[in-house]
Amino acid sequence: MSDQISDLIHEAVNLDDESDSELLHSKIAVQDEADIALLLESLPLEQRLSAWDAVPRHKQLDVLVEMRGDPRETLLDATPDEELDALFTDVDAETLLELSDSLESRLLDRAVAAMDKKQRHLFEGANQYSEDQIGHWRNPENLILPLTAKVSDAKRFLRREIPDYADCIYLVNRAGQYSEAVKLFKIYSTPEHTPLVDIAEDDITIIKAGEDCNRAALNVQRSGFTSLPLVDDNFKFLGRVDIGSACELLNESYERQLMAGAGMDEDEDLFSPVKKSAKNRALWLGINLLTAFLASWFIGLFEATLQQVVALAVLMPVVASMGGIAGSQTLTLIIRGLALKQVNPANLKALLIKELKVGGLNGVIWAIVIATVASYWFSSGMLGVVIGCAILVNICAAAVAGVGVPVLLDKLKLDPALSGSVILTTVTDIVGFVAFLGLGALLLL
Amino acid sequence: MSDQISDLIHEAVNLDDESDSELLHSKIAVQDEADIALLLESLPLEQRLSAWDAVPRHKQLDVLVEMRGDPRETLLDATPDEELDALFTDVDAETLLELSDSLESRLLDRAVAAMDKKQRHLFEGANQYSEDQIGHWRNPENLILPLTAKVSDAKRFLRREIPDYADCIYLVNRAGQYSEAVKLFKIYSTPEHTPLVDIAEDDITIIKAGEDCNRAALNVQRSGFTSLPLVDDNFKFLGRVDIGSACELLNESYERQLMAGAGMDEDEDLFSPVKKSAKNRALWLGINLLTAFLASWFIGLFEATLQQVVALAVLMPVVASMGGIAGSQTLTLIIRGLALKQVNPANLKALLIKELKVGGLNGVIWAIVIATVASYWFSSGMLGVVIGCAILVNICAAAVAGVGVPVLLDKLKLDPALSGSVILTTVTDIVGFVAFLGLGALLLL
Repeated sequence: MSDQISDLIHEAVNLDDESDSELLHSKIAVQDEADIALLLESLPLEQRLSAWDAVPRHKQLDVLVEMRGDPRETLLDATPDEELDALFTDVDAETLLELSDSLESRLLDRAVAAMDKKQRHLFEGANQYSEDQIGHWRNPENLILPLTAKVSDAKRFLRREIPDYADCIYLVNRAGQYSEAVKLFKIYSTPEHTPLVDIAEDDITIIKAGEDCNRAALNVQRSGFTSLPLVDDNFKFLGRVDIGSACELLNESYERQLMAGAGMDEDEDLFSPVKKSAKNRALWLGINLLTAFLASWFIGLFEATLQQVVALAVLMPVVASMGGIAGSQTLTLIIRGLALKQVNPANLKALLIKELKVGGLNGVIWAIVIATVASYWFSSGMLGVVIGCAILVNICAAAVAGVGVPVLLDKLKLDPALSGSVILTTVTDIVGFVAFLGLGALLLL
Repeated sequence: MSDQISDLIHEAVNLDDESDSELLHSKIAVQDEADIALLLESLPLEQRLSAWDAVPRHKQLDVLVEMRGDPRETLLDATPDEELDALFTDVDAETLLELSDSLESRLLDRAVAAMDKKQRHLFEGANQYSEDQIGHWRNPENLILPLTAKVSDAKRFLRREIPDYADCIYLVNRAGQYSEAVKLFKIYSTPEHTPLVDIAEDDITIIKAGEDCNRAALNVQRSGFTSLPLVDDNFKFLGRVDIGSACELLNESYERQLMAGAGMDEDEDLFSPVKKSAKNRALWLGINLLTAFLASWFIGLFEATLQQVVALAVLMPVVASMGGIAGSQTLTLIIRGLALKQVNPANLKALLIKELKVGGLNGVIWAIVIATVASYWFSSGMLGVVIGCAILVNICAAAVAGVGVPVLLDKLKLDPALSGSVILTTVTDIVGFVAFLGLGALLLL
């Protein structure tokens, strides 16, 4: 990622005559694929399409692979069918797997049909696994030898170009089942006639193709190896999972979590078309509107009280927001714990007790602070009592909901990062308003 | 990460007699360091300390390295000084760099003093760079040869154990400046007398030690190499940045962003002591309280209006929350854009216009929906007009704040992921309440 890209964004946005455009295009053409992808994602639609024209044909597929889903689709949508067909005529399996979500089925079918037998086999093999399974993301560039091979065989084999992130040769039996891995550098320091099994690693982690891809990615990252062997349920060797993919999968999963907090996904385009973007976000606003109306409905139950003690209306946001903030802290900690597998049925009770203690302690402290401020502000000691109690109740409810909501969502196989905070704030809003206005009705009327 | 760990958490939490405890300890002792770290982080304090006793001495330092800051400190705090001194007597520079944030200065000084000259030199060299700079995280296990070396020299050199994530030998000149990198596998397929410079890579990315560590980590990940050479400002070779560290640095930075959204940091302990945890979170609650009181103060300006039209009090949360949600969507997109370097002064204006268009479109749609519901609910067409206009104003203000707040914070070198959402919701709360209650005062009284 170079500073040059910032300059190119600036030039592309502020372009005003034809000759500048040619110069800019020639500068874009020489950037590497990831930089071009970043540039395209950073440009408004019109300038993006113009810059896309500058990308040399042989870089186009790799640039598309580097891009996120939505900005990539803006380019594919604007490209005429015949150009797309030409672009995808000799695509390989790995590239097509990365892009297939963005392609119309007509184009996808044509690209698969145009593949040679080997690539089609790889494509179909990977598609036997879902995108959440590591089998979908295998690296098919393998170094395999039979179990009976010797160091001399390995040396002969290694004269060809060695793929990225390869640090072992894998030994398979006659049935194609994975058996052992031999570190490449050991091969060079061992006498020629030694059987490879004699210098094999005995504690290498094996990845099953059906495994969750984040879990597998973490295993690769932790192993110290640059790749781990991938097998199916019968231990048939399928390929490798390399640390490059592992890193990408983890980055994507974090980005998904970050975007999910605002009801978006990681493919969201910085410059998506206005209508599409408005539509994407409308659902989230709609869900949130329902929960806001629900909270309003609860407030509506206390209309008579509010009319008599207008100070309650003035202080409502304080009660709701303290609950929301306290709850979101617990929620964030638990969501991370679930992702890291720190949170388990076994430690849930201890966790709930701890969060309740933290909530209780902070609840008491802030209840006193807020009660004092409110009493002075509205010259009413009883109002202070009411808001203090409501704050304490709401912060404790927030602790319970902060632990309970994400755990429950996780059990229901729903993503706590996506819906956790909406549900949590609905709970803290309603508990806060009802406790505050209910106590107000009891003690202030 | 194995399922065994879930079982061990369960056993540790539900332990009830002495003999079980011995069995459990023997099971813990054989796990690998990262699994033990995960187990310890997942246990309540008392059980955590008991499980820590089961960790064999030779694994203890590595387990501490794998743990997050706060849970690690609970263990260090509970360990007697003499045991700590013993543990840190022959620590290496890399381990001490990872742990130094958690150590008291007395212990740190003793550990540094006990180091041999080479390790102390490495430790001090890394500490010339801050934790945000990649120079702090160099991998000192190097493969370097003089610029004049031949393939035969390299082969001799490679007979020793090769460190993890090594895929190149680096060539340096007499002044110790980095010059070229040679892929290991090329060495084995090239005749002995060939000078190494003849088979060197010409397009390898060089990392400067002063570079931002996330940027450097992304460069390593994108390079396809398992390490890139690290140099100082004078191109003196300092070591390598390997993909293992790159992956960890990126994971940490994402975790920091996720936790920052709730005002916490990535070191937060699932089971931190109640007092410590309450204190950590109190600051965030306090800041939020100030903004909530500010919003209340603005509501207070309209007390008379609220007293006469209590429906306004009932509907206040709808106005505030629609603004908050719309704003947080824009904010999340911009924060990601800043982190990815997609957002630049050059495209800021185009971005603001796009977000205002999206906000305007969604604002009009939801204003109509909400106005309709409110008119029927309270049988007042004028109330519908008031809330509709307030919603439209607030969603547009949210778009402006969603773009402006994070960009401004970033310019001020403040972390938008940490303080962005507090400031944003303060803006949308106040704009929402003032627009809604102000229009109410004008049109409904």
